[in-house]
Amino acid sequence: MPPDSTVEAAVVGGGGELTPDAGSADAIVWMDPRDPEALRRTLASSPARWVQLPFAGVEEFLAAGVLDTARTWTCAKGTYGPSTAEHALALLLTAARGIHRHARARGWMRRREFASARRLAGGTVLIVGTGGIGRALADMLAPLGARILAVNRSGTPLEGAARTVRVTELGDVVGEADWIVLAAALTKETERLFDAAMISRMRPGAWLVNVGRGLLVDTAALVDALREDRIGGAALDVTDPEPLPDDHPLWGIENVVVTSHSANTWDMALPELAERVKRNVERFARGEPLEGLVDVSLGY
Amino acid sequence: MPPDSTVEAAVVGGGGELTPDAGSADAIVWMDPRDPEALRRTLASSPARWVQLPFAGVEEFLAAGVLDTARTWTCAKGTYGPSTAEHALALLLTAARGIHRHARARGWMRRREFASARRLAGGTVLIVGTGGIGRALADMLAPLGARILAVNRSGTPLEGAARTVRVTELGDVVGEADWIVLAAALTKETERLFDAAMISRMRPGAWLVNVGRGLLVDTAALVDALREDRIGGAALDVTDPEPLPDDHPLWGIENVVVTSHSANTWDMALPELAERVKRNVERFARGEPLEGLVDVSLGY
Repeated sequence: MPPDSTVEAAVVGGGGELTPDAGSADAIVWMDPRDPEALRRTLASSPARWVQLPFAGVEEFLAAGVLDTARTWTCAKGTYGPSTAEHALALLLTAARGIHRHARARGWMRRREFASARRLAGGTVLIVGTGGIGRALADMLAPLGARILAVNRSGTPLEGAARTVRVTELGDVVGEADWIVLAAALTKETERLFDAAMISRMRPGAWLVNVGRGLLVDTAALVDALREDRIGGAALDVTDPEPLPDDHPLWGIENVVVTSHSANTWDMALPELAERVKRNVERFARGEPLEGLVDVSLGY
Repeated sequence: MPPDSTVEAAVVGGGGELTPDAGSADAIVWMDPRDPEALRRTLASSPARWVQLPFAGVEEFLAAGVLDTARTWTCAKGTYGPSTAEHALALLLTAARGIHRHARARGWMRRREFASARRLAGGTVLIVGTGGIGRALADMLAPLGARILAVNRSGTPLEGAARTVRVTELGDVVGEADWIVLAAALTKETERLFDAAMISRMRPGAWLVNVGRGLLVDTAALVDALREDRIGGAALDVTDPEPLPDDHPLWGIENVVVTSHSANTWDMALPELAERVKRNVERFARGEPLEGLVDVSLGY
């Protein structure tokens, strides 16, 4: 923050306690993702014009009715892109190379056992959602030689993609992909985007990789497709429900890898979040546009 | 091949049989990696000045005494780089993200269970060997934000590496790496390069990734280091011995992934090898230098 700034930024602890000056702060940096009610109590007596939220997804704050249009809201969207994209790349390569099967093997695998192994090079990756994760993933895929297709709300071209289409046209391109990466925000439009009908349009052998939100997928329909070998497999960092119960059928399917929402651990996220908050505080002090603005009506 | 060329190139089948014109061919393209003696018999009555071998490694032909300095020898080194580098990247990300542990899990993992997960970004990857695999891997790592160190025979800088040292200086840099990728040719100098002494210089938590040759590592010393938790883990596409017997201790160690020499399957390799052979035949016909020249005295 510039030394001449008159802006006060309050860091609010995990228990919701305020720093001494926060009652009159113009801005609140809220670092507890799990207690929307504590934020509501804090805001009731706060003149803050801007609230920074800690995660990329804001659906819990939305559902609790905390977000309003009277204040400016920012979240961490975009900052977690590179880390989550790296995890998506790990899952893509796991799927392509069959690393999950090698990891479980207790003896040398024979050639016919990994006959389905392939390179990303020469294949097609469909990226659903072109925010921070999707953009970072496209950069990471560039040297690997895979063809990239992209889907977003507006159809605005993703750099590095051979073609970008609107989410309403997803059904037209989904059958071209060998691997599909879900990296979209969860909204009314994207909830269960991969339902039975969309999954049925996937190429036989294609993998679904989800690093976005579990509810982007109709899990029951996915289980059916996997059990009937209609698709190649699924690599899921996020699931519905979450945590996935121990007796869930996904745990028993060979070509499924579940990574228990570990794409972006707190240790991985913190350095990038701290940088984002620092930049936003400086921007707020200078009256500049903030990064990671939440559109309350769109829900992300 | 240009239409005016007088060069004959013979394609030799897997059984060692020659095409009708091969007895007088100036060049032999030898596609059987497993029978050096058949090549010796063929060469006994062949005036061929150039022999193209199918794999990147030529140690079996060397050991059989087939390679001589009277002819020009080329192998597939370099062509397999991108595919094997992609596998190395898969193993690096498996190690960093703990994909092997997620793949084996039969229930949702808790946060403390993947506390060791980390990003490649901000870490250091040491690439041992800067041929086709090492160069392609450096390109693939560029957008991931890892610091790259490299080691080769001459110390010639690897593009993208913060620092490249001679193999004789490996001991000075090995302790800086979070992940070490072995992608070197197997020679007298590199055999058991990672012996007990070198492994003891690795950082606690560091992983050894081997996509080169099993004999680059002293396997017994590696097992000791893994059992005593002196290093983080090992991801091995190649092993010594190979295949690794079912009762080998490596199969029972948690932070070990063995991928059964699958980095470059025949299906993955064939398109690139075919392109290389085509280019070399054209170069031979024009009297130009060939790609993938084997230095018989160096052994690769």
